[in-house]
Amino acid sequence: MSGAVQQKQDIVALPVFAAVTLALITILSVWKLKQFKYKLVNEAGVAMFYGLLLGLTVRLIWTDKGEQCPGNTSEISMVNITPHGHVGNEKRQFSSHPEETFDLQVLFNLFLPPIIFHGAYTLNQKRFIANLGSVLTYAFVGTIISCMCIGACMYGFTKLMLLLSKPKEEFFVTHCLLFGAIMSATDPVSVLGLLSDLRVDLDLHMLLFGESVLNDAVAIVLTHAITTYTRMDAGLIFDPTAFLHAFVFFLGVLIGSFLLGLIFTVITALLTKFTRLHENPLLETSVFSLLSWSSYLSAEACGLSGIVAVMFCGLSQARYTVLNLSSEGRARIKQLFEVFNFLGEISIFGYMGYILLKFTCHKFEPLFISGALLSVFISRAFNIYPLSFLLNLGRTNKIPCKFQHFMMFAGLRGAVAFRLAVKNTAGEVNRTIFTTTLLMIVFTIWVLGTAADPMLRRLDIRMGVDPDENQEDRIFEIATERPDTTQGLWHSLDYKYLKPMLTHCGPPLTESLPQCCGVFARVFSSPHVQEDEEEELCEIEAGKNTLDLGETESQQGSSESDSASEHQEDLLDGDLGLGTAPAQPREASGSSTQL
Amino acid sequence: MSGAVQQKQDIVALPVFAAVTLALITILSVWKLKQFKYKLVNEAGVAMFYGLLLGLTVRLIWTDKGEQCPGNTSEISMVNITPHGHVGNEKRQFSSHPEETFDLQVLFNLFLPPIIFHGAYTLNQKRFIANLGSVLTYAFVGTIISCMCIGACMYGFTKLMLLLSKPKEEFFVTHCLLFGAIMSATDPVSVLGLLSDLRVDLDLHMLLFGESVLNDAVAIVLTHAITTYTRMDAGLIFDPTAFLHAFVFFLGVLIGSFLLGLIFTVITALLTKFTRLHENPLLETSVFSLLSWSSYLSAEACGLSGIVAVMFCGLSQARYTVLNLSSEGRARIKQLFEVFNFLGEISIFGYMGYILLKFTCHKFEPLFISGALLSVFISRAFNIYPLSFLLNLGRTNKIPCKFQHFMMFAGLRGAVAFRLAVKNTAGEVNRTIFTTTLLMIVFTIWVLGTAADPMLRRLDIRMGVDPDENQEDRIFEIATERPDTTQGLWHSLDYKYLKPMLTHCGPPLTESLPQCCGVFARVFSSPHVQEDEEEELCEIEAGKNTLDLGETESQQGSSESDSASEHQEDLLDGDLGLGTAPAQPREASGSSTQL
Repeated sequence: MSGAVQQKQDIVALPVFAAVTLALITILSVWKLKQFKYKLVNEAGVAMFYGLLLGLTVRLIWTDKGEQCPGNTSEISMVNITPHGHVGNEKRQFSSHPEETFDLQVLFNLFLPPIIFHGAYTLNQKRFIANLGSVLTYAFVGTIISCMCIGACMYGFTKLMLLLSKPKEEFFVTHCLLFGAIMSATDPVSVLGLLSDLRVDLDLHMLLFGESVLNDAVAIVLTHAITTYTRMDAGLIFDPTAFLHAFVFFLGVLIGSFLLGLIFTVITALLTKFTRLHENPLLETSVFSLLSWSSYLSAEACGLSGIVAVMFCGLSQARYTVLNLSSEGRARIKQLFEVFNFLGEISIFGYMGYILLKFTCHKFEPLFISGALLSVFISRAFNIYPLSFLLNLGRTNKIPCKFQHFMMFAGLRGAVAFRLAVKNTAGEVNRTIFTTTLLMIVFTIWVLGTAADPMLRRLDIRMGVDPDENQEDRIFEIATERPDTTQGLWHSLDYKYLKPMLTHCGPPLTESLPQCCGVFARVFSSPHVQEDEEEELCEIEAGKNTLDLGETESQQGSSESDSASEHQEDLLDGDLGLGTAPAQPREASGSSTQL
Repeated sequence: MSGAVQQKQDIVALPVFAAVTLALITILSVWKLKQFKYKLVNEAGVAMFYGLLLGLTVRLIWTDKGEQCPGNTSEISMVNITPHGHVGNEKRQFSSHPEETFDLQVLFNLFLPPIIFHGAYTLNQKRFIANLGSVLTYAFVGTIISCMCIGACMYGFTKLMLLLSKPKEEFFVTHCLLFGAIMSATDPVSVLGLLSDLRVDLDLHMLLFGESVLNDAVAIVLTHAITTYTRMDAGLIFDPTAFLHAFVFFLGVLIGSFLLGLIFTVITALLTKFTRLHENPLLETSVFSLLSWSSYLSAEACGLSGIVAVMFCGLSQARYTVLNLSSEGRARIKQLFEVFNFLGEISIFGYMGYILLKFTCHKFEPLFISGALLSVFISRAFNIYPLSFLLNLGRTNKIPCKFQHFMMFAGLRGAVAFRLAVKNTAGEVNRTIFTTTLLMIVFTIWVLGTAADPMLRRLDIRMGVDPDENQEDRIFEIATERPDTTQGLWHSLDYKYLKPMLTHCGPPLTESLPQCCGVFARVFSSPHVQEDEEEELCEIEAGKNTLDLGETESQQGSSESDSASEHQEDLLDGDLGLGTAPAQPREASGSSTQL
């Protein structure tokens, strides 16, 4: 029968089956290892290990002798960092099998958005806003410092390489800066995996995770800015015009992506506010997930940063749209993204391991690799210690030294670095960068990831913190009402305009907006408020109790999953943190409009 | 900025974004139309409509003049129905863009398994078993009758075509039979959509849905058998050897796929029975979903029928594994598959609409199309009425005439027919078959699907049935204890061996298995039973109440979603139906092994 059977073979089924089997083995072995108290293992590392094994197997079985490594003209390849234009015509830079580039894009488009969205969506918003200044400093200033540091370091090492051996292609300053930009971002996927495993102190969690989510955006934009700069110029002499152009590009991508993320939140929030979508949790979940995913896809499709867009979308959805959802819809959405986040992390790291051994055109430069290893630590030190010192001058609750040491240490690299490096593997220089990036990822995930647990014990940092520290958190909130420079403007925008426009909470828009915007205010006012404002006010009061009850019930239901209750806290805190009106829950009414 | 922006464009993001937007528009418009009581619309039809619009737009924008239609040698292409061998080397038969074939495969591998799995998993098992004989008759005998009927009809029409005009390529009997096999299967996706919208009588639901799920398998295997037969022979003269070979292939694929589905259920059941996976609902959900998906992927990867495998996997998972899951895991799994099922249906039908207008090599043969239209009705009549007459001779509760009329009418075609037809579009004959299949799908979905609601009213068939008819159902079960020929053997296998081996229910294996299998029985015995059998028996009794309570609680939690409670019934019924011991629920204990 084998001959007949062969005939129907599906070209997609086999690799997907291999990937699924890999994911299953990873899940089960991590789970078993953790049962035996091997706290050192993490999903990312194990997935990578199995990916390496699979890559090795595939390479040993299918060695395609005729496979050509991508072209060797670094200047041109630097320009054509990704193929231009139309779907059918693009050059396959990464590998001779078109499926491979395609696979990679499918993988990233499918799994990266839910991972980033989940991270942003489940962020403890109050703590995040409390630490926002510091997080932004680390993410923006820190990443630029990192990029410059690594770039400078690597430039030194490439000069040394030039002295010791004559490489075929020369490394320019822009190449070094490009490598700096790629390596400067810590990875939210692995950092989040590490943090949720170890359950460190909540402030440290916020600082590390907030930084890792936001610095991705910075690294992505920096990489593009450097590429744009290189395209303008040979990359040797400083050109103010090109620099300005790159800077404008940096700002444009950042602002554009931010706006796109916000637009999709506004659409979702208005849809859930003004329609009866909440009566059908399945529809609610589908529409919410598709719209959130759209923020990433649309940003990528028009050349902006999908990660930045989906991150802002996640943050704003958790702040506004969530208040319009039914309690079942809320639970479903969280569980859906949780599964995607979990499987996505395993898939992406497994794939990275697979590519490391499957890719046949690696270029190992020992000096470049050792330079990278050194510069990663140096740049992290130049990022964390001086910035923490400056930040501590302004902070009421200082960042302790032990936190700084751990932050210095926990600079795990991952999916974003891989994605930036894989964009261009044409030319020896780019392949050296790609190979070194992959090795750095393996190193940080395996060595730094595994050493995190002993490191935390050594530094005596609180671990096993229950993220559901509701009471303590609220007291902390009241006790430390410190002046936050962002709070004033933000509070007025958030509480007076965005909340009433997008949700049923906050003061009516007719009051907060000037007279001239009367029509606008009436259109976007909560339909309930318009119908009977006094009744609504009563409902809000009553709603407070219902919400609390609802949360308690669902917390009981999902008592096994800590993260579920963690978010319940966020929902409450997100609202209580800035002293807005309590959410008015919209439970499904009796009249069910079935789809 | 546009130049710089263009550079980063992702070749996957734009089409996926278009697809997501299409899905969103479909969801929202169907939902809005249903709110206005337009009961006639269904998701499949609307998704197809938007798909057609998108296809038209894409075709108008990107008209690739140089695109070549696939080769014209029908005999050869008939043999090479799908490309052989290695990933990199296959011929692209469907389109000149490799992404398109790939897209299609990704779409089917991603969405078809959850749709079929969800259908089988949420089937009311007791009703299904009660109607099993009839369902199997319709699915097996009926589909073969349909295939023969359509084949014969089409052969007549092709002869007529030959008389009226001389086509470039001649239709052989095997081509007509191939078209018969493709068109003989009613589609579970659209039938399920129709049935769950209209909520018809439960017996009619079982008959129609059971038939549509199982006849897919028959159609798939028939198509392959005919292809195998064609390969053996020129397809003109009857050859007993080739016929026998095709028959063996038919049996081999059916049994192989069935076994693969069962194997993955056994793995899942043993994993959930003997490990503490149920303490972590996220892991439980992931492992369960990945293993169920694996049944489809592995079957496709080794040339068997993925649909048959995943269907048996769904049926058996609902019977055994479900009893080992935690209540939260159960709810999560149902919700996850519900979302996938919902989005999958929209995606697949949207894609079919898209391809209908996007594909440039259609071959419209008016005579062939009108023949197909006629033969679809004739074959359905030859299938339903004679078989119903024969079945009614043996059934205690007869299939009423009005049910037969509706069944005759509700022969919607869909994803499976499309999938079978799209496998080969080389040659004029195959392209005629492909085009006609697509048109038949559009016709049945739009015309028959829309007319179902008025038809049901006209025939005075009970609608709006609450699937949660627990009490009535149980009374019905006790009242109609009719002799079922399958029940005796099945009961003993299910209750005495499979249940005790795979779950914590049923009599201990040490009793039911002969003495010689002592070791085997001890290994697979429930760990609790081994520890203390008497205590276990008490626990089972206590467990009965706990389970009932648990179900009630979760039913309260998800009171908005009817389908959720429908499945709760299945869980209980599946167990009570055949008089086995009640399930022993395994709630998560206090000691949490976190991953």
